[in-house]
Amino acid sequence: MGGFPTTIGEAIEWLSAYGGEADGGVTRTLYSKPWQEAQHALKEWMEQLGLAVKFDAIGNLFGRLVARDAHAPTILIGSHVDTVKSGGKYDGAYGVLAAILAIDQLNQKDGQPDVNLEVVSFCEEEGSRFPLACWGSGMITGVYSFQNIVGVNDSDGITFADAMTQAGFGTTHPAEVRRKDIDTFLELHIEQGPSLEKQGKSIGVVQTIVGQKRYRIMIKGESNHAGTTMMKWRRDPLHGAVSMIEALYEMAKEFDEDLVTTVGQVSVEPNVPNVIPSQVVFTVDVRHPTESVLVSFCEGISRRFREISTQRELDYEMELWHEVAPVQMDRNLNEVIQTICTNHHLPYQLMNSGAGHDAQLFAPICPTTIVFVPSQAGISHSPLEFTSSKDLEAGLCVLTELVKQLAYKKQGGVVL
Amino acid sequence: MGGFPTTIGEAIEWLSAYGGEADGGVTRTLYSKPWQEAQHALKEWMEQLGLAVKFDAIGNLFGRLVARDAHAPTILIGSHVDTVKSGGKYDGAYGVLAAILAIDQLNQKDGQPDVNLEVVSFCEEEGSRFPLACWGSGMITGVYSFQNIVGVNDSDGITFADAMTQAGFGTTHPAEVRRKDIDTFLELHIEQGPSLEKQGKSIGVVQTIVGQKRYRIMIKGESNHAGTTMMKWRRDPLHGAVSMIEALYEMAKEFDEDLVTTVGQVSVEPNVPNVIPSQVVFTVDVRHPTESVLVSFCEGISRRFREISTQRELDYEMELWHEVAPVQMDRNLNEVIQTICTNHHLPYQLMNSGAGHDAQLFAPICPTTIVFVPSQAGISHSPLEFTSSKDLEAGLCVLTELVKQLAYKKQGGVVL
Repeated sequence: MGGFPTTIGEAIEWLSAYGGEADGGVTRTLYSKPWQEAQHALKEWMEQLGLAVKFDAIGNLFGRLVARDAHAPTILIGSHVDTVKSGGKYDGAYGVLAAILAIDQLNQKDGQPDVNLEVVSFCEEEGSRFPLACWGSGMITGVYSFQNIVGVNDSDGITFADAMTQAGFGTTHPAEVRRKDIDTFLELHIEQGPSLEKQGKSIGVVQTIVGQKRYRIMIKGESNHAGTTMMKWRRDPLHGAVSMIEALYEMAKEFDEDLVTTVGQVSVEPNVPNVIPSQVVFTVDVRHPTESVLVSFCEGISRRFREISTQRELDYEMELWHEVAPVQMDRNLNEVIQTICTNHHLPYQLMNSGAGHDAQLFAPICPTTIVFVPSQAGISHSPLEFTSSKDLEAGLCVLTELVKQLAYKKQGGVVL
Repeated sequence: MGGFPTTIGEAIEWLSAYGGEADGGVTRTLYSKPWQEAQHALKEWMEQLGLAVKFDAIGNLFGRLVARDAHAPTILIGSHVDTVKSGGKYDGAYGVLAAILAIDQLNQKDGQPDVNLEVVSFCEEEGSRFPLACWGSGMITGVYSFQNIVGVNDSDGITFADAMTQAGFGTTHPAEVRRKDIDTFLELHIEQGPSLEKQGKSIGVVQTIVGQKRYRIMIKGESNHAGTTMMKWRRDPLHGAVSMIEALYEMAKEFDEDLVTTVGQVSVEPNVPNVIPSQVVFTVDVRHPTESVLVSFCEGISRRFREISTQRELDYEMELWHEVAPVQMDRNLNEVIQTICTNHHLPYQLMNSGAGHDAQLFAPICPTTIVFVPSQAGISHSPLEFTSSKDLEAGLCVLTELVKQLAYKKQGGVVL
């Protein structure tokens, strides 16, 4: 079989060689050499399996098993091939590899399907090389255009356009990127959190990808000498910041446990041990599956932050710099998945996704869902990312069965 | 007079040209070209005034007005010539320039003194180029030796020893640095805080230079995805850090107002908006004029920090990395100064110094004091540093009168 993998466990190891690192991590950022090698290896594998394979102009890779009737609907199945820096073997890769194996298995056992089945290996989802995420699915769905990469550089100053051109893609590439022929989108992914493991479940059926609001809070006070400025004379922006962050976490306790909020980034100026800071900037990330709850929480923290800054005579700005509305996954698809899990004795859980995924770009335009398998200790974006072969196989089983029911009339369960 | 200044206001402007910047700031870090030019300009001025001038092996500059009896005691008067990066014109410089003008004025009016009067322009006090402060006064008093600079580099990787050699000094220089012949040390300095201005006083008579303890607090938790980790599962070191800093400021309120504490430096790992931090390190600076109060406060915060880290299941270390005991200034000298202020109708205030100064190195070995003049708005270490000519003259008047009483028997007030 030309060295290509035959099981999902083998496939994970096989793909992880592209960009693989000594500690078990993988770095395969958009348009990098390991990224190019990985996409071309996937292309060869899918060609060898008899799929009709092509790249689009930005490097999304497709492998199509054509329906009896070429005008039949198309089910797109897959995830992204890129990783964060020093990421793991599973994030994204699992969804691409499982799609190939599922379609190949159906092709071998059940022959030509009643709908077109198409694997996608999205060029980019992580936003880890350039400050722009879901480039692959965003272009396919028309959320992005080439305008979005104008002026975007990586940390080495390489422009997005140059990186794309050097990898053999770009605006002069003949293939159209926008797709209007997708009727269903399915994604299989690791959870990247500890819920499934903690509950002892193999499958997570995602109902909602949570909404997010990310803020930048900038507090300005008065820098002074740490030794000569009495406490009562200070306008210390760090004192303001810690009071705000305490208040943020206290308020989060009053909401339901689906609400998560995080201060991940703090920068202090001038950041010297014996100088009262002049300025503190920190980020707040808030997520919840219900838009009204998200809005209510964010209004509450904004009020509280303003009160604190007024009390302490600090200048204060709160800037919303990233915002995603909650996205519902398709109920009909999820009902089919639950039945499959029950029939196959696979313990499952209805849940929300706290992380963003390519699926959320497709949900507004066609029936879409995403299925999770457990992440050991909830660890992701790390060389320590791990999912057992048993769970990888369980996810592949659910995906294969779902596609079978959607794509073969004789199964009597076509949802499309 | 060869372009040399004749008033303290002129002298401040004259010296600020060495390392002067467009915004009115001054950068004259140890052994830099502006530093060398400043010390040589001071040398020429003092030679022109008839003082016996010499450098020692590390670049401290001395200008001596010899007593009638060469075996008479020696009064050393001065401050430091170095600045922080983008500092002001007054910090350090004022004390050197006022010493020259005071001695010259006495020499002109009262002739040869009964004790040796010696100006010192310490090579370094700020610790701004190399992580080592009070190099000049520390070497003269024997607190430091050349051992202390082994392995010490500046931020460009230049060794302390190479910088010293390139400026024309170093271990091969013939002059001894340690001085055992100093009988009194006097320093005039800007306050670097707002007390005098707020109280409407021209002169601060320093009773104590406060003790300091500086800690580094390192908190380790568990880094995780900001979207997929429920609040109840988190071990967030930043949440621990903000609770500790809030507790620190609350506890400070329970102490007297001489206690000051500052968190000036915070670093968060990995410091990414959508990742729960793995580690937070912050500094705590605590100062008080009474050692027992300082110790009691620090024991209290250490207990509270440990409680918080235990409650939150965080790993925690608290490292004391800098410690200075409170230093008393000489009471007899301060009584003379108060009388001088009263006689000259100069409003004065007894106070503590929250900042460290060269004077604290001399206090353990000879009668020592430091006199402050106001800093506008308390600003220091900034191009905005400013003291009015009136206050500069008031400080010079007090210093001149004090030295006169100490150095001329006919004044009937020799303290030595």
